[in-house]
Amino acid sequence: MREERIWTAAIVIIGDEVLSGRTQDKNVAQIATWLNLQGIRLSEVRIVPDRMDAIASAVEALRHDNDYLFTTGGIGPTHDDITVDAIAAALGVGVVVHPKARAILEDYYATRGGLNEARLRMARVPDGAELIENAVSGAPGIRLGNIFLLPGVPHITSAMLDSLSGRLEGGKPLLSRTIGCWTAESEVAELLAATEKDHDGCQIGSYPFFREGRVGANFVVRSTGRESLDACAEDLIRRLDAAGRPPVDEGI
Amino acid sequence: MREERIWTAAIVIIGDEVLSGRTQDKNVAQIATWLNLQGIRLSEVRIVPDRMDAIASAVEALRHDNDYLFTTGGIGPTHDDITVDAIAAALGVGVVVHPKARAILEDYYATRGGLNEARLRMARVPDGAELIENAVSGAPGIRLGNIFLLPGVPHITSAMLDSLSGRLEGGKPLLSRTIGCWTAESEVAELLAATEKDHDGCQIGSYPFFREGRVGANFVVRSTGRESLDACAEDLIRRLDAAGRPPVDEGI
Repeated sequence: MREERIWTAAIVIIGDEVLSGRTQDKNVAQIATWLNLQGIRLSEVRIVPDRMDAIASAVEALRHDNDYLFTTGGIGPTHDDITVDAIAAALGVGVVVHPKARAILEDYYATRGGLNEARLRMARVPDGAELIENAVSGAPGIRLGNIFLLPGVPHITSAMLDSLSGRLEGGKPLLSRTIGCWTAESEVAELLAATEKDHDGCQIGSYPFFREGRVGANFVVRSTGRESLDACAEDLIRRLDAAGRPPVDEGI
Repeated sequence: MREERIWTAAIVIIGDEVLSGRTQDKNVAQIATWLNLQGIRLSEVRIVPDRMDAIASAVEALRHDNDYLFTTGGIGPTHDDITVDAIAAALGVGVVVHPKARAILEDYYATRGGLNEARLRMARVPDGAELIENAVSGAPGIRLGNIFLLPGVPHITSAMLDSLSGRLEGGKPLLSRTIGCWTAESEVAELLAATEKDHDGCQIGSYPFFREGRVGANFVVRSTGRESLDACAEDLIRRLDAAGRPPVDEGI
C-alpha cells in the first residue's frame, strides 16, 4: 500500500490583543474547519505579538515544513499593522504598492472619503505577491508563494476563505464520527485504546465533559477512509454497548 | 532609568480537537487574562497535535526563553493523554507515580467506582514534579520547575489557576485603557501613530469593527505605568475630539 500524501498547513495569529486576553481568537477554528474541507491538515498554530522579529521567526519556522501557511492580523491601515513588512523581511524581498490593490482601494474609498495615506498602506505587498479577493471591505488579502496573509477580523477572513475554496491542492479530508457516552472516560479507557489499536489508520480522541450534573465524554473517531472510519466507529459502539455503557451515535 | 524587568510566559495547547476545528479553545484567553493579573506577559502560544515529538519540541523551544511555561490538555486517563510522557522525554527525566497524587485519586474515586488502571495514569508525573491543587475533579495539575501542566477542560484549568494565584513572581501588570470611536481606523491612522510616538512606554493597538451598519474602532492604550497610561489616553481623547471624531471613553 502506498503511503498517503498528507497536505498540511500552519497558522500564525498575529495579535497582541489575543495574547493580552482581550480578544477571543475565532480564526483558528474557522480556518481549521475550512482547511479540513480542502483536504488539508492543520499541523500547528502559533500566536505571536505584533513585533517584526516574532512574526518573521514564526513564518520562517513554519513555511518550509508545511504546504501552506496562513497568517491573520496586521494587514490594516494603522501603525501597528506590520505583517507585510515582517514577511517581506523574512523572505528577503522588498515591499511594493500593488497596482491592482491600489485600484481596488481607490474604487472602494471613492464614496468613503477617498484614498488617504493610511488606506494606501493596504495596497502594499511583498514584491511578487498576488491578491486574494475581499468581497466584504475592499482591502484584499495577499498571497506570496505558499503564504496567505489574511486579516484579523473574522468575518472578512471568512469571506477571503470563501474566495480560496477549492483552489488549493489537498488530499483526502480527514473524516470523523463522534460517539457520545454518559460515562467517565476513565471507566472505558482500556476499551478505547484496544479499539484504536485494532483499527489501523484510525485515531480515537476522548473529550470528557460535565453537564447537567453528570459526567460524560465524546469519543471522536478520525480517519481519511470512509470504510475504515465506519468500521472503527461501529466496533466502538458495539464494545461500549457490551460494556454496559450505552453509546450515543453522533455524540452528546 | 533602570530597564524594567518583564516576566513572560508561553502556552502550549495540546489538542488535536483544537487543530481540527472541532473545539473552540478557551484556555488561551483565560490564562492570558489571569497572567496579566499576576504581572506576567504572555509572549507566545503554540497549538500542537497530540504527538510526543510535537509536544516535546514546542516545550523545549519555549521553556528557556520564558519565566513560565503552561501546557493545557493531555493529562487525563485515556490513551491519547501523553503530555506527561512527552515532557518527561523532552527534559530527560523518568515518569513516576506521585504518592500524594495517588492518595488524592484513591480518595476521590472511593465513592466513584474505585481507582482503576486508567485513573491511576493521572498520578503519573515527570520525576521531581510537584502537584497543583484541583478543587473540582480530583486529578491534580503538575508543576515541574517552570513548567505547569494543566488540563484541557476550561473550568478545571480555571480552578487550578485560582490555586496558583499570587504564587508566581511577576512584575508590574500591563495596564490598559480603551477609547472607542465611530470612525474608520484609516481616518485616524496618522493621529494614532503620532500619539503613540509622543508617549514613551505606551503602545496603542487599533481594533476595527463593523456593527449596526457602521464602522468603528477601539483603540487600546497599554502601559505598565498608571500615570503614563492616563496621560497617553487623555491625549488620544483630546486629539480625536479635535479631529472631529468624538471619542467614547472605556470603548464601544
